[in-house]
Amino acid sequence: MNFPSNIFNSHSGQDGDFFLGITDILGFKPRKLEIYKKAFLHRSVNKKDKNGNPMNYERLEFLGDSMLGTIISKHLYNEVPEGDEGYLTKMRSKIVSREHLNELGKDLNLIKLVESRIPKTHFGDNIHGNVFEALVGAIYMDRGYKYCERFIYDRVIVPYVDIEQLEGKVISYKSLIIEWCQKQKKAFNYNVYEDTGNDELKHFAVKLSIGNKVVAKARATSKKKAEERASKRAFFALQDRIG
Amino acid sequence: MNFPSNIFNSHSGQDGDFFLGITDILGFKPRKLEIYKKAFLHRSVNKKDKNGNPMNYERLEFLGDSMLGTIISKHLYNEVPEGDEGYLTKMRSKIVSREHLNELGKDLNLIKLVESRIPKTHFGDNIHGNVFEALVGAIYMDRGYKYCERFIYDRVIVPYVDIEQLEGKVISYKSLIIEWCQKQKKAFNYNVYEDTGNDELKHFAVKLSIGNKVVAKARATSKKKAEERASKRAFFALQDRIG
Repeated sequence: MNFPSNIFNSHSGQDGDFFLGITDILGFKPRKLEIYKKAFLHRSVNKKDKNGNPMNYERLEFLGDSMLGTIISKHLYNEVPEGDEGYLTKMRSKIVSREHLNELGKDLNLIKLVESRIPKTHFGDNIHGNVFEALVGAIYMDRGYKYCERFIYDRVIVPYVDIEQLEGKVISYKSLIIEWCQKQKKAFNYNVYEDTGNDELKHFAVKLSIGNKVVAKARATSKKKAEERASKRAFFALQDRIG
Repeated sequence: MNFPSNIFNSHSGQDGDFFLGITDILGFKPRKLEIYKKAFLHRSVNKKDKNGNPMNYERLEFLGDSMLGTIISKHLYNEVPEGDEGYLTKMRSKIVSREHLNELGKDLNLIKLVESRIPKTHFGDNIHGNVFEALVGAIYMDRGYKYCERFIYDRVIVPYVDIEQLEGKVISYKSLIIEWCQKQKKAFNYNVYEDTGNDELKHFAVKLSIGNKVVAKARATSKKKAEERASKRAFFALQDRIG
């Protein structure tokens, strides 16, 4: 009996690294690995498909950008029944802002999978957000709408979309925590340290203690973001007592 | 045994008319009729939901606009593998242009279901496109992505999206037909007449004959559009001979 020669080692070597990396980011197994590879392919590589069409992540970015906007629109529609069309439009732009998507892409460390002829250190910040959108486009093409929605929910909405904060009602969770500690006469401490690990980007970790107890930990690409994230976690953990 | 009193006449009277009208437009049965009613509710009616939030089609329009863009993006992504991001963006704007959506909404005669305190004759052209987008939003909320995609495919992509024509490669199917007839030394005739029927908008019908045979019929809200539509049908029917 003859098996195709690649059946036992279809994810070996470089492909295997990519497969593991992408599965980790997705939280599910990709079906068509090729389309995810395309989502990380920078135009500088100058690849063409079998018909001679240029192959890079830009077309998938176009698709993912649109799908991301739709899922966020649906979420806002459901979550804010009192918001009119103008409000929904404004909130969606905040969520899918370039800055926000770049942060997201950085946190997922997508750059480590990017294939490019330009050194990665030469890229501006936008590569992170662009590749994130391309990844959403790839999921849409590979697994369809449902997986896309799930991915955006898990990777964007749950960790990043805080409507109160986007509305400017909560400026900073750190200030809420400090205020509460002062009122309660409790000592607090933000212990920040560099924790880059194997990432290509510098990362910071923070442990927030109130009294003598560590109440929240977080990790991000800047000190300020790590502190804010830990504060938010602490805030929700303590919400009954703070509220 | 007690049945809820509305079980036997849940679609009677005004509701029944709306139910029949909307089912005809959708091509499937709506589940939550209320959401479709919202899609046709103009702000002038000043309705509020049970929580006091203003109720009209504008929030659904926001949602439908986004979903429509996504489905069209996916279609273009699949149909034009050689088009880059700039091309895809340009083509999508042509397809979802205000003018195009207004035409679509008019052809479906959506205005007949609109609930408004302003006389319908006082509305500008945009009401047609806005309500069309709201309807897409309503389908998304009622039946989810798959039904939305199917609806957009049947009602937008198949009848309206002609990539060659949008690219400007084919300016007019009427001119192609005329050219072919002249070359073949065949007589042709566009027989146009008013055919408004029960519609609130004026409609025109056209029968295109080549030689002594009617080769295509069409109906639209202007003479020019009806002629173009009949020409396009004739073109595809005759394609083997013309091509």
